[in-house]
Amino acid sequence: MGKLKIVTIGGGSSYTPEIVEGFIKRYDELPITELWLVDVEAGKEKLEIVGNMAKRMVEKAGLPIDVHLTLDRREALKDADFVTTQFRVGLLDARAKDERIPLKYNVIGQETNGPGGLFKGLRTIPVILDICKDMEELCPNAWLVNFTNPAGMVTEAVLRYSNIKNVVGLCNVPIMMKMQVAELLGADGDRVHIDFAGLNHMVFGLNVYLDGENVTDTVLDKMTSDDKKEMTMRNIKNLDWEPSFIKGLKAIPCPYHRYYYKTSQMLEAELEEADNEGTRAEVVQGVERDLFELYKDPNLAHKPEQLSKRGGAYYSDAACSLINSIYNDKRDIQTVNTINNGAIQSIPNDSAIEINCVITKDGPKPIGIGDLPVPVRGLVQQIKSFERVGAEAAVTGDYNTALLAMTINPLVPSDEIAKKIMDEMLEAHKEHLPQFFKKIEA
Amino acid sequence: MGKLKIVTIGGGSSYTPEIVEGFIKRYDELPITELWLVDVEAGKEKLEIVGNMAKRMVEKAGLPIDVHLTLDRREALKDADFVTTQFRVGLLDARAKDERIPLKYNVIGQETNGPGGLFKGLRTIPVILDICKDMEELCPNAWLVNFTNPAGMVTEAVLRYSNIKNVVGLCNVPIMMKMQVAELLGADGDRVHIDFAGLNHMVFGLNVYLDGENVTDTVLDKMTSDDKKEMTMRNIKNLDWEPSFIKGLKAIPCPYHRYYYKTSQMLEAELEEADNEGTRAEVVQGVERDLFELYKDPNLAHKPEQLSKRGGAYYSDAACSLINSIYNDKRDIQTVNTINNGAIQSIPNDSAIEINCVITKDGPKPIGIGDLPVPVRGLVQQIKSFERVGAEAAVTGDYNTALLAMTINPLVPSDEIAKKIMDEMLEAHKEHLPQFFKKIEA
Amino acid sequence: MGKLKIVTIGGGSSYTPEIVEGFIKRYDELPITELWLVDVEAGKEKLEIVGNMAKRMVEKAGLPIDVHLTLDRREALKDADFVTTQFRVGLLDARAKDERIPLKYNVIGQETNGPGGLFKGLRTIPVILDICKDMEELCPNAWLVNFTNPAGMVTEAVLRYSNIKNVVGLCNVPIMMKMQVAELLGADGDRVHIDFAGLNHMVFGLNVYLDGENVTDTVLDKMTSDDKKEMTMRNIKNLDWEPSFIKGLKAIPCPYHRYYYKTSQMLEAELEEADNEGTRAEVVQGVERDLFELYKDPNLAHKPEQLSKRGGAYYSDAACSLINSIYNDKRDIQTVNTINNGAIQSIPNDSAIEINCVITKDGPKPIGIGDLPVPVRGLVQQIKSFERVGAEAAVTGDYNTALLAMTINPLVPSDEIAKKIMDEMLEAHKEHLPQFFKKIEA
Amino acid sequence: MGKLKIVTIGGGSSYTPEIVEGFIKRYDELPITELWLVDVEAGKEKLEIVGNMAKRMVEKAGLPIDVHLTLDRREALKDADFVTTQFRVGLLDARAKDERIPLKYNVIGQETNGPGGLFKGLRTIPVILDICKDMEELCPNAWLVNFTNPAGMVTEAVLRYSNIKNVVGLCNVPIMMKMQVAELLGADGDRVHIDFAGLNHMVFGLNVYLDGENVTDTVLDKMTSDDKKEMTMRNIKNLDWEPSFIKGLKAIPCPYHRYYYKTSQMLEAELEEADNEGTRAEVVQGVERDLFELYKDPNLAHKPEQLSKRGGAYYSDAACSLINSIYNDKRDIQTVNTINNGAIQSIPNDSAIEINCVITKDGPKPIGIGDLPVPVRGLVQQIKSFERVGAEAAVTGDYNTALLAMTINPLVPSDEIAKKIMDEMLEAHKEHLPQFFKKIEA
Ligand SMILES: [Mn+2]
Ligand SMILES: [Mn+2]
Ligand SMILES: [Mn+2]
Ligand SMILES: [Mn+2]
Repeated sequence: MGKLKIVTIGGGSSYTPEIVEGFIKRYDELPITELWLVDVEAGKEKLEIVGNMAKRMVEKAGLPIDVHLTLDRREALKDADFVTTQFRVGLLDARAKDERIPLKYNVIGQETNGPGGLFKGLRTIPVILDICKDMEELCPNAWLVNFTNPAGMVTEAVLRYSNIKNVVGLCNVPIMMKMQVAELLGADGDRVHIDFAGLNHMVFGLNVYLDGENVTDTVLDKMTSDDKKEMTMRNIKNLDWEPSFIKGLKAIPCPYHRYYYKTSQMLEAELEEADNEGTRAEVVQGVERDLFELYKDPNLAHKPEQLSKRGGAYYSDAACSLINSIYNDKRDIQTVNTINNGAIQSIPNDSAIEINCVITKDGPKPIGIGDLPVPVRGLVQQIKSFERVGAEAAVTGDYNTALLAMTINPLVPSDEIAKKIMDEMLEAHKEHLPQFFKKIEA
Repeated sequence: MGKLKIVTIGGGSSYTPEIVEGFIKRYDELPITELWLVDVEAGKEKLEIVGNMAKRMVEKAGLPIDVHLTLDRREALKDADFVTTQFRVGLLDARAKDERIPLKYNVIGQETNGPGGLFKGLRTIPVILDICKDMEELCPNAWLVNFTNPAGMVTEAVLRYSNIKNVVGLCNVPIMMKMQVAELLGADGDRVHIDFAGLNHMVFGLNVYLDGENVTDTVLDKMTSDDKKEMTMRNIKNLDWEPSFIKGLKAIPCPYHRYYYKTSQMLEAELEEADNEGTRAEVVQGVERDLFELYKDPNLAHKPEQLSKRGGAYYSDAACSLINSIYNDKRDIQTVNTINNGAIQSIPNDSAIEINCVITKDGPKPIGIGDLPVPVRGLVQQIKSFERVGAEAAVTGDYNTALLAMTINPLVPSDEIAKKIMDEMLEAHKEHLPQFFKKIEA
Repeated sequence: MGKLKIVTIGGGSSYTPEIVEGFIKRYDELPITELWLVDVEAGKEKLEIVGNMAKRMVEKAGLPIDVHLTLDRREALKDADFVTTQFRVGLLDARAKDERIPLKYNVIGQETNGPGGLFKGLRTIPVILDICKDMEELCPNAWLVNFTNPAGMVTEAVLRYSNIKNVVGLCNVPIMMKMQVAELLGADGDRVHIDFAGLNHMVFGLNVYLDGENVTDTVLDKMTSDDKKEMTMRNIKNLDWEPSFIKGLKAIPCPYHRYYYKTSQMLEAELEEADNEGTRAEVVQGVERDLFELYKDPNLAHKPEQLSKRGGAYYSDAACSLINSIYNDKRDIQTVNTINNGAIQSIPNDSAIEINCVITKDGPKPIGIGDLPVPVRGLVQQIKSFERVGAEAAVTGDYNTALLAMTINPLVPSDEIAKKIMDEMLEAHKEHLPQFFKKIEA
Repeated sequence: MGKLKIVTIGGGSSYTPEIVEGFIKRYDELPITELWLVDVEAGKEKLEIVGNMAKRMVEKAGLPIDVHLTLDRREALKDADFVTTQFRVGLLDARAKDERIPLKYNVIGQETNGPGGLFKGLRTIPVILDICKDMEELCPNAWLVNFTNPAGMVTEAVLRYSNIKNVVGLCNVPIMMKMQVAELLGADGDRVHIDFAGLNHMVFGLNVYLDGENVTDTVLDKMTSDDKKEMTMRNIKNLDWEPSFIKGLKAIPCPYHRYYYKTSQMLEAELEEADNEGTRAEVVQGVERDLFELYKDPNLAHKPEQLSKRGGAYYSDAACSLINSIYNDKRDIQTVNTINNGAIQSIPNDSAIEINCVITKDGPKPIGIGDLPVPVRGLVQQIKSFERVGAEAAVTGDYNTALLAMTINPLVPSDEIAKKIMDEMLEAHKEHLPQFFKKIEA
């Protein structure tokens, strides 16, 4: 058996036990020989805590996987087969600002496809592109599997501004939607298939099949009936959809669509949440503190129950299934972020989309849908414009471009308010945005 | 010299003297033999007042144009060469509701591409499609030149739901933008050329040329400098653009773009206006009353000065130039609404767009631009989705489809608010929306 | 267990035992309850011979499949689940003319994508469209699985001129190419995957994977090395490819590509063959006579060895696998003819292509390739033009359109020669081309 | 009045007096200050003869145009405004080989879109790309107006392999077709408009308008009636079209289409011609000798009558009109080779096409046609594939790629014959194809 080396950048994340558990479960098919957990100086302590926990998990499973903990990214990347990225520049403190500052101007922060997401992108994309440069040199054939949000903008940036073509963006939203639809239908998940298409956190379920029969209308009915089940995720309030709207739409929106189709109510809910339990980042900070306390326990060698509060349901499944199918050329169907190449006609061929793909050793091959339904094309295109302009701003550090990205975001109600949020956030994140400040100094 | 018959539906409009003046000015090239002004029973009185004024204008000019006034649309359409439409179902009262009702929910009405425009479309499209059916039978080779708003949605509906292919949608926005840009540059209009592309009331000036030299950057600078000139139109408040946003955008927005890029300030301004001088419809009602008083004067035989307050600057120029160029196969360049056919790549080939065209006897031939700039594609696509879903709702009378159109409009902040506006407006316009109420009764 | 009714039109074909054997082998997954073999009056005797043989095969297998033989197509179609078409208008005599007449003018007949194929299309398409009309009425949800050649032109015609959208065109070329490539590589077929794309009998293997690794270059080398294996099919002479050409092409041509890339040698070979053993149709007529003698044997209850000479290797596999995957929503990958819908960019979205698809209960979902390699786009497009113009001629019976199709075929060297072949073939096939002759009489 | 500097590369061509005459005629609008005629050492004598003639013409016209003759291309290019290219690598001797060698294998040479054209491209493209490099440095804003054939492949190569975006390919075929159609209609040329679209020497007249009325059917009738007029050009035999074919086609082919739609007859005619008066190159060599004798006459100061035998009718009009319209931002419509950008949908956006354009100071803006008629898409695409693969071969000097281009050319009947022609021509043109032979030596 040859080498199979996996590198996880942001290895000190509280999520790491999820993915380690996933690798352990799939060891028969996916015989990993080395797992490198990489983090930066600021995350050293967390890396050690969670890394030791990972080592205990592997040891307990009795598997010959070498777990390495390191701050030396280049050493880790050397000859890697898969590189997963789950880091967070500026940690949860930065996310808290992404959420809080827009709210001051009565704007939802939305840490992925909103003003907060723009700043997360501005901080993250330069780091990802640096990793890509290292990969070109150290492991040019490896696959980059990115979880770091905004995953759509990040994938777009890698496709457009790096030479790494082996990149996949991953999200647990589609798999969660499928499981919730299955529950609505009272069926096991494996009997349900959904044609997903759109962008990251802007994906629609276009058709639902139960045992191959199209049951989309039934699902739309059940979603909007009085005894409907919850169809959202831990971080997004489960506000009800207007039944007539959903029936007119004839497609299943993802939980994040509430930000765009229910903007006023979501804003109200977020303002209230911020005043009470705190924004999502602030809540998660508490959860994380507790988790790391647990991870420190030298007797703990399994993923603790409490991790589920963190919000990453199916996260490990998504990552490990993808890596497994690439490694073993499984040619099964998974929903990932990849280059469009004609699969959705109104989106440029060279842009990233989120879509059902056949997963092969040669990467994901999108199953084309022709085009998105007319009613959703506008909003999807708007987020794609936002992702592209945002990615450009991250690379150029150009103020006008960044303001443009902020202004065209569908959550931002005017160029003036965009400028206020922009200026306050630029200042707040100054430390992590050298591309903008170097320019000004020069 | 043969017959040249022009039919103006909504002939009782206060605008009619504009277009009559235009025809008189161009008589040498465009030797109209018959001008039929058509209106409905409810507009009979206005038709007579303005129609008699038109007759006096023609007589004063000493031209052999037969001016006919009629309520019999089919008689008028028989063997027509050009049919212009400028009618308003429900008159200005309906527009006032289109503007007032959304404001109750803190939403801008926007009588063309907003919630108000949706209802204007729902009232107008069935009538236009009826006219098309008559044209198929009575004047199948005539050109339909439509001014009735929402001109984009109406043109889309004609292309999609009628057999009339000879249709052009017209708007005075591009020509006004050109004249204002010329003024900014201190140059005559005929030295300036602008590459226009987008949708009706959603059109961008992509490049500006002065004597053929690209001066776009200069224009963007001047537009946002301290001593800038007014760049809007009578019905849209001249709020300043954020200079960094415009410089990032690298294109000239049209006045209507303020509704989407300055939504919060425009809403504030409209709320205040509604509380004080009244909405635009209410102001125009006053202007119209005054105009019709003037038109009654049997000695008045020229377009009165006061008509310019009405807001249709260059309206006559746009219409008469278009008709002239089609009639005479002039092959000059004008900006009109026509079928895309590949001119803008991210918009479906069979959709209506607003773009520079070579105007020939065989109709407008779009000058392709490749694609719209990335930053504006999303918003443009969103209005296109709105236009298509709105047109479908107008034809089907389906409540869910209409609510979908309302919800996806970029000015509407949630599905719930959409439903409230929807339900109140449906009731308010019940008389003019039989397609929705027949269904319910059946 | 419910009903599963399969109808085979052209049931009297000598191929029928192949498909019956396939159904028997897959009975566990595909529990057919009724198999209807349909033929026309002229094929009655063959239908009885082969139909009785089919009954014996089923009986021997001990399966509860009702086998029906009928000349009443409408009775058979009622409530069918799958309809397969394998009929031949005018039988092999007509094919012999398709091959012989063009040769008189030094033109290859090519019974699928050549002049012969045009006439086969002209005879076949009206019948297929009739079947589609019956299906609309009698089994609107059934799947039409068409084998009748020219399968590309026929699928194009069904997509364009009928209301049946559940149509798949099938061919054994891709599966045969895969098996031959596997043999070249010394590997089992299931370790090999090929990205197929193009049109029927105009399909290319764009990439070859062995256990997921891209081995395309190796295959191109082996195909053109001195100890290469045969890579063709029974009906196409195995002329060697010019190694430099294949290496420049960087893709695996299908056996039929020899007609276009080796036209002069193929013509020479066909002329010689016609002079000696006879054209392919004439050879097959002998084979068929022998087969029907065998089928008459009341003790024969299995597919005879000699059937393999007929040329339809993997034919049964292709058909039964497809039906099985649709019926069971298998979501495996098969190469079929289906609507493009963006999978190949330089071909219109609404045209038929041959491409790898995920096969679902909702039909084949193409796996997009972006676009075909530049060097092959022209030839592929040329055959697509030929298919579309040919299909139009079949429907309209317009002489000029038919001559146009003949002239643009890449095997036909001039409009004059096209006209000569056209006129002679029209006369020869008069009996089966009522659409052309009714017109002339009227 | 500023400087207006025009550089003509290949200035020693016998055509030069045509273009000089054109400039003189348009001097009022196009006040050229410097005209630089550039040639290579081998063309020095001709340059002097024709250059002195040009000086006499300018002097006689009494215009202040400085005419410079030089072998120093870089000196000439410095600060040029327009660069026209009309050079011929290897002179007419090379063309004679391009025509003769394929004929040995019963293949038409066709010096533009045939095997001969491939070799002309292989010789020319490296030189053009060198000129582009010089232009980038010495006159980056100048317009490159290329006449050198194969103009389609050359324009494609410039768009794809240089940084010069201000390039237009020019041909006199569209203007000649228009004049011949006008003659057919008995009308002046300026009353006729034709919608041209396709590729260079592969262009179709899609619609013909007389005074704006669509008269295409009349033209098709007249083209194929018994008393038709000649519709070809000096170098292409006027073989009649099959009337039914043309009526099926519903478009006007260009003279060069005879090579593809009448291949067998054209081959026969060319073989006969080669045996008798010689190939076109050989005939032209005689014409040129006579012309240069005339040009030597120090009293000759006007374009001699005999130049019309050379074949470049309207050549000067095409060039001078284009330059004039760019210089003066005329926005009139001319047919040129430029980047597609969506004007013809089945051709890639970044490829060169020949199409009607609005000619502006910012270059040609194509008037989109949607897509080419179905019947011609295949052949057009085939030549586009040929152009692209040929251009790639010219740049890379790769033998396999060149053989691929040769094999996919529609005039070449097999890969084996392609190889024979290829090998003989490579050897014959060795001197001018260093990119192929350096490789072999290395
Ligand atoms: Mn996600
Ligand atoms: Mn308007
Ligand atoms: Mn086949
Ligand atoms: Mn030419």
